[in-house]
Amino acid sequence: MAEIKYEIQETIGSISQSPKGWSKELNLISWNGKAPKYDLREWAPEHEKMGKGVTLTVEELKELRNLLNGLEL
Amino acid sequence: MAEIKYEIQETIGSISQSPKGWSKELNLISWNGKAPKYDLREWAPEHEKMGKGVTLTVEELKELRNLLNGLEL
Repeated sequence: MAEIKYEIQETIGSISQSPKGWSKELNLISWNGKAPKYDLREWAPEHEKMGKGVTLTVEELKELRNLLNGLEL
Repeated sequence: MAEIKYEIQETIGSISQSPKGWSKELNLISWNGKAPKYDLREWAPEHEKMGKGVTLTVEELKELRNLLNGLEL
């Protein structure tokens, strides 16, 4: 089975926690030794397992920030 | 095979487009007829196929906005 190597270089923050302890987090992650990317995804406690998510470039984060700042939440 | 029904109720905006035309978008989506949730994911042109992504509640979006506004991007 193929293997994905990753290293969480920085935890920017958590945006929620599920009753089972999974946390939705924005992290800076290096995948397979490459330059790190921002990453929004769910994690089990202690980052033991990862859920689905999206990686985001700095440009995408800026666009996302613009979108969110224009929303009435 | 199980089927997921969804309806894109509102496209908030796109944050990037890939060379192949896939678009990373923030949408408001109703899954299986339930109350709509915010959703950040990649889509093929015309929303023909979906990639991986995350659904987000209003509270999570607010937290994410706070995180992004605190970052130096």
